[in-house]
Amino acid sequence: MAAVQARGLYQFDGDASNGEISFLADEILTIVRQDIGEGWWEARKETGEQGLIPETYVELLSIPEPQFPPPPPPNFPVDLPVQTPTYNNVNHGDGQTEDWDDEWDDDDDQSSNSTAKQSYNNNNEPQGTGNFGLSAPKRERKQISPTSDMSKYGTVKSSFNRFSHFVKLGGDAYIMGQVNHEVRETDLIKIIETNDGPEWTPLQSPYTCTVSSPKKESKMKGLKSFITYHLTPSFSNIQVSRRYKHFDWLHERLVEKFICIPIPALPDKQISGRYEEDFIQERMRMLQQWIDRMVRHPVIAHSDVMLHFLTCTNDKKWKEGKRKAEKDPYLAGKFFLCLQTPPHSCDMKAVEAQMEVFCRFVMNMNENCKSIIAINNDFSKKHMGPFKREFQKIGHSYKNLSTTFALEEGAYSLQLTKAIDFMGDSYCSIGDMFEKQPPKDLFPLIESLSEYRGILQTYPDVLKVHEGAVGKTKDCLKLQEEGKMTDGEVQNVMQRADTISFGTLAEMHNFHHERVKDYKDMMQNYLKSQIEFYKQITSKLEASLAMFDNA
Amino acid sequence: MAAVQARGLYQFDGDASNGEISFLADEILTIVRQDIGEGWWEARKETGEQGLIPETYVELLSIPEPQFPPPPPPNFPVDLPVQTPTYNNVNHGDGQTEDWDDEWDDDDDQSSNSTAKQSYNNNNEPQGTGNFGLSAPKRERKQISPTSDMSKYGTVKSSFNRFSHFVKLGGDAYIMGQVNHEVRETDLIKIIETNDGPEWTPLQSPYTCTVSSPKKESKMKGLKSFITYHLTPSFSNIQVSRRYKHFDWLHERLVEKFICIPIPALPDKQISGRYEEDFIQERMRMLQQWIDRMVRHPVIAHSDVMLHFLTCTNDKKWKEGKRKAEKDPYLAGKFFLCLQTPPHSCDMKAVEAQMEVFCRFVMNMNENCKSIIAINNDFSKKHMGPFKREFQKIGHSYKNLSTTFALEEGAYSLQLTKAIDFMGDSYCSIGDMFEKQPPKDLFPLIESLSEYRGILQTYPDVLKVHEGAVGKTKDCLKLQEEGKMTDGEVQNVMQRADTISFGTLAEMHNFHHERVKDYKDMMQNYLKSQIEFYKQITSKLEASLAMFDNA
Repeated sequence: MAAVQARGLYQFDGDASNGEISFLADEILTIVRQDIGEGWWEARKETGEQGLIPETYVELLSIPEPQFPPPPPPNFPVDLPVQTPTYNNVNHGDGQTEDWDDEWDDDDDQSSNSTAKQSYNNNNEPQGTGNFGLSAPKRERKQISPTSDMSKYGTVKSSFNRFSHFVKLGGDAYIMGQVNHEVRETDLIKIIETNDGPEWTPLQSPYTCTVSSPKKESKMKGLKSFITYHLTPSFSNIQVSRRYKHFDWLHERLVEKFICIPIPALPDKQISGRYEEDFIQERMRMLQQWIDRMVRHPVIAHSDVMLHFLTCTNDKKWKEGKRKAEKDPYLAGKFFLCLQTPPHSCDMKAVEAQMEVFCRFVMNMNENCKSIIAINNDFSKKHMGPFKREFQKIGHSYKNLSTTFALEEGAYSLQLTKAIDFMGDSYCSIGDMFEKQPPKDLFPLIESLSEYRGILQTYPDVLKVHEGAVGKTKDCLKLQEEGKMTDGEVQNVMQRADTISFGTLAEMHNFHHERVKDYKDMMQNYLKSQIEFYKQITSKLEASLAMFDNA
Repeated sequence: MAAVQARGLYQFDGDASNGEISFLADEILTIVRQDIGEGWWEARKETGEQGLIPETYVELLSIPEPQFPPPPPPNFPVDLPVQTPTYNNVNHGDGQTEDWDDEWDDDDDQSSNSTAKQSYNNNNEPQGTGNFGLSAPKRERKQISPTSDMSKYGTVKSSFNRFSHFVKLGGDAYIMGQVNHEVRETDLIKIIETNDGPEWTPLQSPYTCTVSSPKKESKMKGLKSFITYHLTPSFSNIQVSRRYKHFDWLHERLVEKFICIPIPALPDKQISGRYEEDFIQERMRMLQQWIDRMVRHPVIAHSDVMLHFLTCTNDKKWKEGKRKAEKDPYLAGKFFLCLQTPPHSCDMKAVEAQMEVFCRFVMNMNENCKSIIAINNDFSKKHMGPFKREFQKIGHSYKNLSTTFALEEGAYSLQLTKAIDFMGDSYCSIGDMFEKQPPKDLFPLIESLSEYRGILQTYPDVLKVHEGAVGKTKDCLKLQEEGKMTDGEVQNVMQRADTISFGTLAEMHNFHHERVKDYKDMMQNYLKSQIEFYKQITSKLEASLAMFDNA
């Protein structure tokens, strides 16, 4: 693949803290990535410095074959209102009876059947298998570009439309009391006050759910194939069959409804090789990971839509539940109607400060995870390539020496020759150990960190909702000063803003608790395996030493 | 330094097993080394293939500044007779009393004051310090070139003049009985017969000798400076002062006399930086290593010249002993006169076969050592560079993560943050450990192996003597068949050839015994240190794990 070169059309002074690089008019740059989106490319200067550049500031000098999917068109509707479900066939016939979920498109992976999804999941590009059986690092939209979601917390260029986002999700309507209808007792979600702040009521009856037995099935005389997974929730122990597109549907419902809860993306879609055993097993593991997190969540685990997904075995009931979930009266902004908050108000300034720290936390943690993943990905590759070869090279050099030493057959020499041969074997097998180690610890570590990145990347949307609420409240306070809103009206607005704060803080604490638990587990598992690894190396060497001691 | 390029004048079909590469007329090669000697250069083809080429087959395209000492001139007398000492001033005045050894040239390192030395020591080129305080791999004459010493055992091109070598060293004169004078009882060296074959009589009173306290001294009002070392033999405990040139003199005497014993080269000469502390300490260590090996040798340890070197403290006696050693009646070929062999004859065919295996042993072991040194040199550099950086990069990535986690100050999160910080520190210090490890085990290993290469490289000369004797004997048997030699004459020749065989076999066994002991020590020390290293890594990781367990 030839390098793509570009010439600067104008001078550009990049913001280094934002990952941008500066260049002069007429400067030649090598374009490294064109798939970042939103008008940004990644480029490398002749000095080796690499970073983001605005694509309109340069002209390409050579056009290679496309190596990445093209960026979305400029007017791509990033924030389409979620209240407009666009499933093509959503109201199609009950008359079609061949397959109870035939109404959905069968190509699980080939195309997104809803453009609305794009606003939630920027991670659904195809990916390769390879990479030692690990998912390739997700080719996400680079979040640091000026208008992207993540950047606003880190840069001053925050020109994003937080209010429009807030408005579109129905946050505005909620906070202004325009959607104030009655909530059934069973739909109420209680937030409790703890020493650490507001928290979701802990799960009363926690459960688990296994994803297993992926199976290739087909219909229409084999013209259409798909993979089904068996899901078995621990509370019922009744197995249900689900396809990837069902997970996709569930994911969309969760994102749509739980406006203040970050819902991690599903494992990536895949165009080719999606019926290969490795890929299927890998996807199953990723779906298991996703389901694990969802059923651990105190709000999501017992939500109607989740339970419907995990339990429904009947075609007709599935359709009913599906429609019910899509018409849920408490979607998005209206979700806050369900929150039963502690009976006091929030200190808006304090919460704002707290959220600012949390925004920084999320942004930094995302960067930290990214860099730990990159470093350990690299470390894995080194284990499986150079480190392995290094030890095997050493091993072979001793094996060769022992072959030479075997030319002298004197009894006084024999044991040494054997010991050196043994040492050669030991080093070779240490080389093998290096190759086999990453799947035991580095890959799981990378996988866990990648899962966290998935969560962290969905957080900005969640935080924008709270920011929108704060902004709206301030607007109302101004209107109150100007006499355009009554004290009572503003009081109500602030109460509802508090509800949004409580929900956001409860989820923030949930995130932190999960994080502490997950990172502890993650690191313990990783370290235990590393300790075992170095102990094994040590014992290989000790066995070699014993041979020499006896020589 | 610009690369030296050469163009092929004629096609050359190299013998790959001999390290040669093939090339076409007009092919462009990069010349990598010109100091290999004997008409060979090392070159690299455009394909990256690298090996030896005959210099007369190419013409240089660019002449860079010399980076190596030029190869010896074509008629360089490689096999100057050792019986012609060429020390310039060897008979100079007793009248000069300023310094008892003033008669020698003061520039220890600047030039070899005897061309004869070249025939024994091909390793005396200057070397750099650097290289982590290790000696640079010795820039020896590449032994695999067709006419060099080592090649004859490995290739069919053995056009070397083994007989002329044999003749020049006086082997011919000895075997033909032309030097058959009486040997004093005290000069006799007894070879005993053991289960493993002929061996030198073991050392009756083994001793050691320490080399210490290098000190810069000067004379001629500071115009001439030199370093003296203190030598203290354990049998006398009386300290003597010696300079490098005294070692050099001793080395030359040993090479000259002990024709069937490989005498390793001294540490390399050095032109610049030879008064720097690091260099002096390093040289002292190398001299200690050299002396250690010499005083362990059953024949050399109690030789007159050795004892003179280790004990003489008196100017006048030194000079006497020096002249005596230089006029030793049992030098080179005449050394065999001193051997008192077992009272039976040798099976010439069996010994020949044995020596052929040993030749292969020496050649292969030399190659093995070379490759183990190269691999471990590279491994050391990786420890001190990439491996260190790898672990530190990991360490810093965790340190950064803990900085982010510290943004959340909840008590439930604090211990995790601390544990991650601790883990970051642990990985950084593992990085440091990688940097500090090679001086503890890899460097000593490389040093020991390098010492062995020094011995192995002097072996071909020793083996040529035996080969010469075998050849001579065969000539005599032919003459006997042709009636040109009497049975009695041939009998005597064969007896003396047996003496050479006994001496060569005794030394071969001595070599093997030393080798077995040395390699055992070497590997034990290396493995012990490696085990310690991996245990330390393990305990660092265990300490990290404990932090998480308590989090």
